[in-house]
Amino acid sequence: MSTRIFELEKPKLKNPVFVEGLPGIGHVGRIATQFLVEELKAKKFAELLSSHFMHYVLLQQSSSVHVLKNEFYYVKAKGKVQRDLILLIGDSQSIDPEGHYEIAHEILDYMKKLGVKEMITLGGLGIGETKEKPKVVGAVSDDGLDKKYKNFGIDFDAGSKIGTIIGASGLLLGLGKVYDMRGICLLGETSGYPILPDPKAAEVVLKVLMKILNVKVDIRKLDAKVKEMEEFIKKIEEMQRKAIGQMMQQQMPPKGKEGKEELSYIG
Amino acid sequence: MSTRIFELEKPKLKNPVFVEGLPGIGHVGRIATQFLVEELKAKKFAELLSSHFMHYVLLQQSSSVHVLKNEFYYVKAKGKVQRDLILLIGDSQSIDPEGHYEIAHEILDYMKKLGVKEMITLGGLGIGETKEKPKVVGAVSDDGLDKKYKNFGIDFDAGSKIGTIIGASGLLLGLGKVYDMRGICLLGETSGYPILPDPKAAEVVLKVLMKILNVKVDIRKLDAKVKEMEEFIKKIEEMQRKAIGQMMQQQMPPKGKEGKEELSYIG
Amino acid sequence: MSTRIFELEKPKLKNPVFVEGLPGIGHVGRIATQFLVEELKAKKFAELLSSHFMHYVLLQQSSSVHVLKNEFYYVKAKGKVQRDLILLIGDSQSIDPEGHYEIAHEILDYMKKLGVKEMITLGGLGIGETKEKPKVVGAVSDDGLDKKYKNFGIDFDAGSKIGTIIGASGLLLGLGKVYDMRGICLLGETSGYPILPDPKAAEVVLKVLMKILNVKVDIRKLDAKVKEMEEFIKKIEEMQRKAIGQMMQQQMPPKGKEGKEELSYIG
Amino acid sequence: MSTRIFELEKPKLKNPVFVEGLPGIGHVGRIATQFLVEELKAKKFAELLSSHFMHYVLLQQSSSVHVLKNEFYYVKAKGKVQRDLILLIGDSQSIDPEGHYEIAHEILDYMKKLGVKEMITLGGLGIGETKEKPKVVGAVSDDGLDKKYKNFGIDFDAGSKIGTIIGASGLLLGLGKVYDMRGICLLGETSGYPILPDPKAAEVVLKVLMKILNVKVDIRKLDAKVKEMEEFIKKIEEMQRKAIGQMMQQQMPPKGKEGKEELSYIG
Repeated sequence: MSTRIFELEKPKLKNPVFVEGLPGIGHVGRIATQFLVEELKAKKFAELLSSHFMHYVLLQQSSSVHVLKNEFYYVKAKGKVQRDLILLIGDSQSIDPEGHYEIAHEILDYMKKLGVKEMITLGGLGIGETKEKPKVVGAVSDDGLDKKYKNFGIDFDAGSKIGTIIGASGLLLGLGKVYDMRGICLLGETSGYPILPDPKAAEVVLKVLMKILNVKVDIRKLDAKVKEMEEFIKKIEEMQRKAIGQMMQQQMPPKGKEGKEELSYIG
Repeated sequence: MSTRIFELEKPKLKNPVFVEGLPGIGHVGRIATQFLVEELKAKKFAELLSSHFMHYVLLQQSSSVHVLKNEFYYVKAKGKVQRDLILLIGDSQSIDPEGHYEIAHEILDYMKKLGVKEMITLGGLGIGETKEKPKVVGAVSDDGLDKKYKNFGIDFDAGSKIGTIIGASGLLLGLGKVYDMRGICLLGETSGYPILPDPKAAEVVLKVLMKILNVKVDIRKLDAKVKEMEEFIKKIEEMQRKAIGQMMQQQMPPKGKEGKEELSYIG
Repeated sequence: MSTRIFELEKPKLKNPVFVEGLPGIGHVGRIATQFLVEELKAKKFAELLSSHFMHYVLLQQSSSVHVLKNEFYYVKAKGKVQRDLILLIGDSQSIDPEGHYEIAHEILDYMKKLGVKEMITLGGLGIGETKEKPKVVGAVSDDGLDKKYKNFGIDFDAGSKIGTIIGASGLLLGLGKVYDMRGICLLGETSGYPILPDPKAAEVVLKVLMKILNVKVDIRKLDAKVKEMEEFIKKIEEMQRKAIGQMMQQQMPPKGKEGKEELSYIG
Repeated sequence: MSTRIFELEKPKLKNPVFVEGLPGIGHVGRIATQFLVEELKAKKFAELLSSHFMHYVLLQQSSSVHVLKNEFYYVKAKGKVQRDLILLIGDSQSIDPEGHYEIAHEILDYMKKLGVKEMITLGGLGIGETKEKPKVVGAVSDDGLDKKYKNFGIDFDAGSKIGTIIGASGLLLGLGKVYDMRGICLLGETSGYPILPDPKAAEVVLKVLMKILNVKVDIRKLDAKVKEMEEFIKKIEEMQRKAIGQMMQQQMPPKGKEGKEELSYIG
């Protein structure tokens, strides 16, 4: 199958903004987006499965299994929400470079069909230390587009150091041009230890995101939510690492016994 | 070719249950399912070949070669068998994550064509120690489905620890929903050393399986059968490890000789 | 492209035997088959290119480049040749498991189109020591087929030790059944150091092959030919290893400098 | 998507020569070709994206992101340019062997559509030392074609040492025959440390290239240009290595804690 999107519903959306919050360093984007999904009571309308995720399922509390997936939600403009939104969260990103491209193209193709022209991708920026007041660093899809976002307290000076944005947040933004989409990537400064979710970095990113979207959400619940998620995220990380460890172990040849080689044919 | 199923016969089956017993930890599922295949005189009707298996053939006692494959068997409801069954056994699972998904989808697609709506996947659960009375741990495809299986002595409490089910047993169950299939995964507790087949774990799984299927088979022959299979399974494991070892060795560059590099062009 | 066969000529052959001699341990099959190609003045009629070979070209004496390939030759039955023959030699086998299957299927598909029903694959059998009189070990595609080849001095007892035949020689024979082809794999005992071509093992294999095909060729030239090939083969091996080494080196991260991490974004 | 070429313009070219200068050892081909692109004011007409490049984007000074790509430029014959030219430069080559073939075939297929029959590929030749006067070593697509290029000071003696040309420069030349293209690969001798761009090697290659194309360009600006590029190229290399390092780290299992294994299921 490789990568396929299964639609649960065909939402009719008007000029929606696409917000990506897949897991990554510090789980910054994931925490921020999942919080929005819950607070705005967003509705799931599609799931993405891929052979570029790990080949296991998660066993849930209820004893039912959960295939690794990415999930698309939407919110219609109404009340405190000014514009239709599409929110993407998920359990995993691709485990190999090629899959990253494949999944990004699948997502962008689908977003284009849903009328998306603007995207905001969220992630963490590993800086090797913990800051009292982490900054939100921005990268845009096109030269000059930073001006559009200049009033939201985003740091656009980091570009001078020439860095990279690895994975979905970068590729979606970069490849988006092929699909006539423009947008911004918001990166919250975080220490960079991937196992620990960083609610503080998620909070600063969420605040900027809400300003851009002009959405108001009571952010005080974030800390409690993060505590809830923390245990779950840590377990998934642990499992992912252990599964990879086991896989490697299974593919490793046993320590060579001394003495003569046993019979074996090589054609 | 990637992954392809070759049909030897087109069986007409009525609402068949699909039982998966591919090799895995302790060879629990494989031993249990192969025993059923033999005791119920199941008939082979299809073979699955895949480029995600190792690139070698096994040399058999008869001096003929055996390509690594998965094999589909069926049993028609009759006498002690209450429902039509499809049984899947095999030499190997995919050697890479992507292949696991590809093979699972091929199998599910084929099972759907044959009218499968219910599946039981079998495997081992590595617990790091040997138990006098290993438990059978269960995972279901859907929330609440554990109730359907509550009278068979299955432990459904393990879900609270959030684990993973790696490989075919988990993916078939998890991806099965896309194909409108529901079911259960039965995992027999085993020490977890992959080289040693664990007949005791296979036995407890087999007993639960027979209760669910309402099939009666004289299980006393299992020990003898396992002894027969043991030697063969150990040899295959050994060969697999050795083949991987050789492959890695062949791809390793030789230890660098001192002195200057030899001429080599890089464009 | 993945794997593609380019035809230079469409030979009309009558019930041809397909002989495979791709490089492998001790270059046994390759030496034997290339000798036949030259002595029987076989004509090249097709080339196979694959993205599963290494991504470099060889620079030849003439300063022209040579893409890694497999080459198909034919000989029409005439004079000392009793039956039409197709001979396959080449620079390389696949560098990954998946490619081995892909290439084997491409070859078999093509052979089937050319009317092949019988194949003989050639290889080396690493035994860890050098023998004065190496044996030729046989493996057949089907149970009982060893009887057909019983009068040629082939050792069919090795099957009792359950081994594997890695790569093209095994896969072609094993997968051949899907294409209605039957045949035998001849393995010459050799020490098993892949870098050194083993003319002695090639000679014993060649002698058995000539008996099966009922072809008479003056084998005294083999030693001289092998000397010619030796230098070339060693250089290719060296290059292959070096290329892999460089590739790995290029993909290895530099040794971590002490001190703080530099700025880097991970979305 | 795998690999795809996006056309910005459909240039009408008359018997164009295709010049490849993708990054490689010493960035020799890249520096030489990019210099020509700038000095001849070549016009970009197509971009190649590939899932065989690394899965990140570069963050530019302007804070906009840049997807890794290869870029096609053309120059029409006019004034000091005798023939229509197509120039290929880019950020990256494939990160895996299979992708090298895929990208080479995509490029050649496209070049064939644009009427290319002759190509010149450029690269560096790592010799492990720095030379005062580096040579330009040549490799041609066909036996005897070296005669066509004999008056340009190219060293055609290296072929006697049997080497390899790794990556795009070699594969394009070697696979070009399938597309009826002929040509030459020019390799400038360089020390071989991939991180450092080598303007001296680029200069000698550029001089030979200009003689072959009969193009006159003021080469004195090259040094300044190289200085400009140097910082950028070093940063990209660094990022590439760091990204690979992080990727590997993320996929490595954590150091095993002592004590018992935690619960984990393997089907």
